[in-house]
Amino acid sequence: MGGDYAPEEAIKGVQLFFEQMPDSSVHLLLIGNAIAAAPYLSLLEPYHHRYTFIEAAEVIGMHEHPTKALKEKPNSSIAIGFGLLLKGKADAFLSAGNTGAMLVGAMYSVKSIEGILRPTIATPMPRVDGGYNFLLDVGINADCKPEHLVQFAQLGSLYAKYVLGIDQPRVALLNIGEEEGKGNILAQATYPLLKELTDINFVGNVEGRDIFLDRAEVIVCEGFVGNVAIKMAESIYEILKVQKGINDPFLENFNFEKYGGTPILGINSPVIIGHGISHAFAFRNMIETAGKFISSGLTKAIKENFKLPEA
Amino acid sequence: MGGDYAPEEAIKGVQLFFEQMPDSSVHLLLIGNAIAAAPYLSLLEPYHHRYTFIEAAEVIGMHEHPTKALKEKPNSSIAIGFGLLLKGKADAFLSAGNTGAMLVGAMYSVKSIEGILRPTIATPMPRVDGGYNFLLDVGINADCKPEHLVQFAQLGSLYAKYVLGIDQPRVALLNIGEEEGKGNILAQATYPLLKELTDINFVGNVEGRDIFLDRAEVIVCEGFVGNVAIKMAESIYEILKVQKGINDPFLENFNFEKYGGTPILGINSPVIIGHGISHAFAFRNMIETAGKFISSGLTKAIKENFKLPEA
Repeated sequence: MGGDYAPEEAIKGVQLFFEQMPDSSVHLLLIGNAIAAAPYLSLLEPYHHRYTFIEAAEVIGMHEHPTKALKEKPNSSIAIGFGLLLKGKADAFLSAGNTGAMLVGAMYSVKSIEGILRPTIATPMPRVDGGYNFLLDVGINADCKPEHLVQFAQLGSLYAKYVLGIDQPRVALLNIGEEEGKGNILAQATYPLLKELTDINFVGNVEGRDIFLDRAEVIVCEGFVGNVAIKMAESIYEILKVQKGINDPFLENFNFEKYGGTPILGINSPVIIGHGISHAFAFRNMIETAGKFISSGLTKAIKENFKLPEA
Repeated sequence: MGGDYAPEEAIKGVQLFFEQMPDSSVHLLLIGNAIAAAPYLSLLEPYHHRYTFIEAAEVIGMHEHPTKALKEKPNSSIAIGFGLLLKGKADAFLSAGNTGAMLVGAMYSVKSIEGILRPTIATPMPRVDGGYNFLLDVGINADCKPEHLVQFAQLGSLYAKYVLGIDQPRVALLNIGEEEGKGNILAQATYPLLKELTDINFVGNVEGRDIFLDRAEVIVCEGFVGNVAIKMAESIYEILKVQKGINDPFLENFNFEKYGGTPILGINSPVIIGHGISHAFAFRNMIETAGKFISSGLTKAIKENFKLPEA
């Protein structure tokens, strides 16, 4: 039920996924209102054995207060989804619904992995050579301490390794100068901590211009600057591609629908938040990402990486 | 002598300015090494009455330590320029040389206007409708308190009014949410202070996507995020325009040479810092901006605005 074009686009995304991914070992649980979904469910008729429809009598609106809505609407698709995840009846949960409710649900039901100070969200940024860099945090941690950025670096590195399949991903600190010692107080204090880490491949500082270049696969920053950066990138795409119709493969990769959604890293189960304006293609890609997230064993790897040494 | 292509491009910029600006009331003082400049000075022959050449026996390199270099090279073009400004023999000073030396010279010789906590630098950001918004701070103030952002708002507003000729410029706070109360601790604390001000037209928060839109002419942020933002914008231009050759008027306005340089706001005389890679067109535009800076009376307006009430 999540997103501005639900349930039509969500169900069409499921259809795309089924059409293009013949591996029937992936079984989808579609949570929503049966009456609203009915006009589109016929599209899934050829794949009826590959999904189960779960009725959700309530819907959390895009502008409702997250904590309040989750508490008062236990039969909303978001509340039911987190319930299934908690009980182990689902392996991953994704929605393009109320972002705040997705975050609150993730934090308070699925909860952080032991040892993680703050879960984080990450976004791929297109690279001029056709690849992507992975920027995090992009908005849920706007006031960070060095130890938070250190964990974002570790989480991003593990995601790049496990889900994106990059061996020894290069990790960089987003800064306003290249040399060690440059930047604000936070960056100056974070740099030496990153340099000391043995579990990541830290390559030093990068600047705003390097976000689109082949300098580091994982770029770490505070959520405030990361959020400004992704919204600038979205705006560039909207203006040059959507409004002006400029065709270019680099520009095309700014289209968030290509990667589908934003994973929450550092919680006990895979959760992916979609953009409210997601269409079928984005939903299809979110489902694929969720599948990779599960099969990669990332969550287990994070748990092991952050396990405190036995007393 | 400043910049990667000095003195050739600097002198060609002066030539462009003289050709296109027949108002001979602007007299230029060109500070540099006569031998290095000689091959190009012949270009200025038709305008010999409109400039004075001042010999500078030393040059501060692009990678020299600013404070040390300024102290040890009193005959460098940058040291001489600030000397002329201080003595009132020049009304404005501009250079595409060592940025650090320009900043140090500005802070320690020209000095801050009384009442200004921290001078700031600003950059125009292209708007999809063909105009520009004015973003500040873009890199010299990476750790700010709310009172600094408040002054940037006032300085940016005065610049927009006096130099850009915008009546009642709209001033916004760059944030990661639109409503009051959103954002990091700094943004949350700054918003109510901006709202209280009677000397600016505060229109609330804007997000990263709004930097390119018609939402506010002046956008205020901490120097860290502002610097990441301008370097992302420079990179977008470099990739799409310079490398890929995409022609589009909005994209074309990302070319920093169009506005030439970055004014330092809040010091006792007009100073403009150019990009190290400036060509003739950028120098021409820097000179024009310096002229507007002087004739607008901005410095006097800032002094009056920040004057402490008499005891």
